Amino acid sequence: MDNTVTRLAILGSTGSIGRQTLDVIRSLSPRFSVAALAAGQNLDLLRQQIEEFRPGYVYCEGEKALNDASTGYETLSLEEIASHEQVGTVVIATSGKSGLSATLAAVRAGKNVALANKESLVMAGEIITCEAEASGASILPIDSEHSAIWQCLQSEVQSATSVILTASGGPFRSYSLEQLEQVTAAQALKHPSWQMGPKVTIDSATLMNKGLEIIEAHWLFDVPFENIRVIIHPQSIIHSMVEFADGSVKAQLSYPDMRLPIQYALTYPERLPNPELPRIDWDNITELTFEQPDLDKFPCLKLAMEAGRKGGTYPSVLCAADEVAVDLFLSGAIGFTDIARLVEQVLEEHQTVSRLTLEDILATDAWARQRVNELTGGVASW
Amino acid sequence: MDNTVTRLAILGSTGSIGRQTLDVIRSLSPRFSVAALAAGQNLDLLRQQIEEFRPGYVYCEGEKALNDASTGYETLSLEEIASHEQVGTVVIATSGKSGLSATLAAVRAGKNVALANKESLVMAGEIITCEAEASGASILPIDSEHSAIWQCLQSEVQSATSVILTASGGPFRSYSLEQLEQVTAAQALKHPSWQMGPKVTIDSATLMNKGLEIIEAHWLFDVPFENIRVIIHPQSIIHSMVEFADGSVKAQLSYPDMRLPIQYALTYPERLPNPELPRIDWDNITELTFEQPDLDKFPCLKLAMEAGRKGGTYPSVLCAADEVAVDLFLSGAIGFTDIARLVEQVLEEHQTVSRLTLEDILATDAWARQRVNELTGGVASW
Repeated sequence: MDNTVTRLAILGSTGSIGRQTLDVIRSLSPRFSVAALAAGQNLDLLRQQIEEFRPGYVYCEGEKALNDASTGYETLSLEEIASHEQVGTVVIATSGKSGLSATLAAVRAGKNVALANKESLVMAGEIITCEAEASGASILPIDSEHSAIWQCLQSEVQSATSVILTASGGPFRSYSLEQLEQVTAAQALKHPSWQMGPKVTIDSATLMNKGLEIIEAHWLFDVPFENIRVIIHPQSIIHSMVEFADGSVKAQLSYPDMRLPIQYALTYPERLPNPELPRIDWDNITELTFEQPDLDKFPCLKLAMEAGRKGGTYPSVLCAADEVAVDLFLSGAIGFTDIARLVEQVLEEHQTVSRLTLEDILATDAWARQRVNELTGGVASW
Repeated sequence: MDNTVTRLAILGSTGSIGRQTLDVIRSLSPRFSVAALAAGQNLDLLRQQIEEFRPGYVYCEGEKALNDASTGYETLSLEEIASHEQVGTVVIATSGKSGLSATLAAVRAGKNVALANKESLVMAGEIITCEAEASGASILPIDSEHSAIWQCLQSEVQSATSVILTASGGPFRSYSLEQLEQVTAAQALKHPSWQMGPKVTIDSATLMNKGLEIIEAHWLFDVPFENIRVIIHPQSIIHSMVEFADGSVKAQLSYPDMRLPIQYALTYPERLPNPELPRIDWDNITELTFEQPDLDKFPCLKLAMEAGRKGGTYPSVLCAADEVAVDLFLSGAIGFTDIARLVEQVLEEHQTVSRLTLEDILATDAWARQRVNELTGGVASW
């Protein structure tokens, strides 16, 4: 077997990050081979991907329906794929909670874990980072912000003294509180600078996404919460910044295109030329602007900071309540500003546990989901 | 002798960079000791520095006048200091041509050479980089732009695909050609963002400084001239940027303060906390702007790019003619726009040599200086 070929498992291959990961692999072929693919319900696309990339192992929620495919492969569970000996790097591109157990399986198996799923680290950052230290697994961030921080930290002898996470501010940056009450799902799904899946797009509009990234950055880079700040940068060119002990700041810049952080995670520590990736046209960049986030208009950011600082199972409540609330908003059952109200109420009701286990996290997750559903049983009160 | 103490020689200790180097050493004491000081004519300040830092070796152009000082030290030549066995790192903070022979002596002796003097690399970049490779000397850039590039390149496996040098644009960025004709030395000495010595301040106003930096960047980072561009960034917060094979760009940011690049060169690869160094206040940064340089209004930038590309002794002509022309402008003998005209004419008259030696460089330097003086003998014609 050629050691220069990286054997990938892509969990969530039919989602936005999964599809872009396969785009990168097409561009950089034959440097990578696809050992395994895993997807949820998009059977048509998964069949096409199996046809094109010929993985040895497949997981699909709609497995029975898939079995009519003629291409030979073995079906395995997400955890079996994530820890399989034929897999070198696991790309966790599932959204929401579904990535957690696969991330843990990959980390425990000492894999390179290219992590696009925010919830894994937010819910179980302490467990995952401890397990990674024990097994020697590398966690390679795929989020554009964390990739930026990671790129800026390369070979610095000391760690960062502070991290400045940039945020586009989402489509409602300049809306009033009254306007935010009226926002529809269709409006919220139109992000000004990034093309992403629906969950993360809504989270970007509420700034919950940035809040989750704060918690993620805390675990990935071992930076205390008080040294992580968020700054609104509507052009989404600077993807984040890092400050060092001498006051010097490094930033990473590019047009918003997830294929760059995906590729960097896959080729790290190398960088490979890829003509598909856009280059900044400095003839047409005239300004980069910055604003402070408005925590009154975007309370999800504040809720996430508080949940991160309090730790324990609070971040799991945050994730679970948000995931259910976003689904309810997308289905039209609740309003845009109800997302933060629901998350806040469930966080207030929660009592964290003193010593965190995976079971605590999963029990908390189930409880928080149930509470949101109970609270919105009478949607009219929201 | 304690190995954790870096023994420094500071050539040009009474100039702007030299004084700021001593500021950094005061802040980081006892990490550094001053083994040697060298200065030109500012005897009062040099005496104070000798009193405070107690160097073992001193060079001074006004040496005899200095000998009345009671503090014990040995007087040596610049080259003897630069190559002295008691010196680990040589800070070349002299301005203009005077740093060249000392830089070469330090490089040949395999020292760490913290280089603030642009002219050394511009005139003799090929010789200096070859000698450094042979001796194992490290060239540590002190210019803010080259320090920025150097910081961004740390630990990247591949070299940069392109370099974006930022320029404040100087005090006359928005002047018309007619207004530029009327600029006085007093106006030109007021730089909008940097506090520097007179030569580099005038070079910043003509953009010659940025042109010299292009040539310097070419030699320091082995980047072809066609992959180096200049962009005007009036806030002087981003000090330069580097683009990589995958299109990712890294930038280094800080308030304009030369103590940061000085300190980084002295502590590299570490960064040390220094409460004297300012930190960017993100509450008050609302925009970073960018413009293209106007080569018609600032022809020195174009002249430098051409001289760099042509190579040989052309960059020496550029440096020498500019140095004399800036002196003439500062003395009121010629106008602001005459600087570029004189440099251009002397460059046009010049025939480069085919194989470059230090003797060629010094002969070219002498010739170009003489030609500027000849051409301005009748100043009225300019």
